Amino acid sequence: MAATVLISALLLFLLICSSNISNSEKTRRPEPCKRLVVYFHDIVYNGKNAQNATSAIVASPAWGNKTTLATPNFFGDVVVFDNPLTLDNNLRSTPVGRAQGFYLYDRKDFFSAWFGFSFLFNSTRLKGAINVAGADDITKTTRDLSVVGGTGDFFMTRGVATLTTDAVEDDRYFRLRVDVKLYECY
Amino acid sequence: MAATVLISALLLFLLICSSNISNSEKTRRPEPCKRLVVYFHDIVYNGKNAQNATSAIVASPAWGNKTTLATPNFFGDVVVFDNPLTLDNNLRSTPVGRAQGFYLYDRKDFFSAWFGFSFLFNSTRLKGAINVAGADDITKTTRDLSVVGGTGDFFMTRGVATLTTDAVEDDRYFRLRVDVKLYECY
Amino acid sequence: MAATVLISALLLFLLICSSNISNSEKTRRPEPCKRLVVYFHDIVYNGKNAQNATSAIVASPAWGNKTTLATPNFFGDVVVFDNPLTLDNNLRSTPVGRAQGFYLYDRKDFFSAWFGFSFLFNSTRLKGAINVAGADDITKTTRDLSVVGGTGDFFMTRGVATLTTDAVEDDRYFRLRVDVKLYECY
Repeated sequence: MAATVLISALLLFLLICSSNISNSEKTRRPEPCKRLVVYFHDIVYNGKNAQNATSAIVASPAWGNKTTLATPNFFGDVVVFDNPLTLDNNLRSTPVGRAQGFYLYDRKDFFSAWFGFSFLFNSTRLKGAINVAGADDITKTTRDLSVVGGTGDFFMTRGVATLTTDAVEDDRYFRLRVDVKLYECY
Repeated sequence: MAATVLISALLLFLLICSSNISNSEKTRRPEPCKRLVVYFHDIVYNGKNAQNATSAIVASPAWGNKTTLATPNFFGDVVVFDNPLTLDNNLRSTPVGRAQGFYLYDRKDFFSAWFGFSFLFNSTRLKGAINVAGADDITKTTRDLSVVGGTGDFFMTRGVATLTTDAVEDDRYFRLRVDVKLYECY
Repeated sequence: MAATVLISALLLFLLICSSNISNSEKTRRPEPCKRLVVYFHDIVYNGKNAQNATSAIVASPAWGNKTTLATPNFFGDVVVFDNPLTLDNNLRSTPVGRAQGFYLYDRKDFFSAWFGFSFLFNSTRLKGAINVAGADDITKTTRDLSVVGGTGDFFMTRGVATLTTDAVEDDRYFRLRVDVKLYECY
């Protein structure tokens, strides 16, 4: 009987070890412990749309200004944003949260941006922040940024936020679909 | 005898498993492995206080400038800071370290900021950096930012930095109490 | 026989426990699970070098401008960069990737900077991003920044990027040697 219990204990133990090992293999990705998909709407201030604008150019290179994105490739423009998040792709849907922070265009020969911001939720269902940093290489269909931390319902989380461009309208409005996959949950 | 040892081993094993399980429950928070409380003093440059100022507006939206915080809600202003850290709430106490980096105001309808900075320590007692990123939603009494990494004595750490406003004096000086709770220590 | 197996299981178990314990001792550092060394080249725009420049001042304090670094200590200047990465210290070597993001000078009494950027790789051998944040205290020979996340081949990584200044030429060109040590690999 003792031998049977012993073998069970060992098997359980090896199972746990092997699950750790398989997670650390490069070809295997863990399953997210939490996941959410939101749409991110950005309307840049152009000198005339103060009411509707959700973002504004606040810095630009010597050859740029604050109401027109710089040529070429907007390189050097820094944009601060206060963007609504919705569950579908309709700008006028009730926001479920906001994305607040900045992005800057940082590639000379094509469009690419770097983001530092938070997804902020403050509803009865969801409270807290997801903090994001990383490169948005617009040459690719999907781009992965890092979730570097979180607070509230997202305490100490880490993960990946995958961006897909859902719409671009004449340099003033763009909409991203963001698939947030969290792999560390407390 | 073998059975007794076996049962002890199993109990120890289950204890370890269950402690992991309880840590991952949403309602339970782990205890910090390291904790420190510091006061953060910020004096913004206003065109006349070059000697005393510890921070400066370096970017602003089209409607702003670099010696007055923008209206409304400072939205779009980016501030670079080199702020002393003290152990009590007295600006003139001997600093124990510095907070260096930036914040930007990123909310149109109220005050809210986004921070990226490091707490830097270089004393015999404490050496290294704690790197912080996250949103400071000034509508709330306490605000949690993410500790996203560290170096030196804070090698690879993660955690939460909780801000409380301790004083605000006419848009030029503010003081934050920062409670840094580290949950991952190497 | 059962006792022998039992003792083996216990020894294995204790070995695993103790290896965890030794990793968490402050004086012991884990070995990196991945490591790479690259050279980072930065040529700041000065009003005349538009072709060669890889970076540009995009924000500055009230007393600064966008073609000359501010006095004193460049405090308040924000620089956006699109810098080539090479395997040796030759600016003209074929780049193996790019570093894109920003740094800002954030110390009044000496040179110190804060970086937020990504190392981006897109070759057959290496694909993905390493996201970095932290202080570059130029008073020190080696400076540690935090690797706060990664994507692609660097999925969910964390670690430390150690900077050493390899060359500085008249405030317009500098070269850093970067030793990236990753301690968490998936």
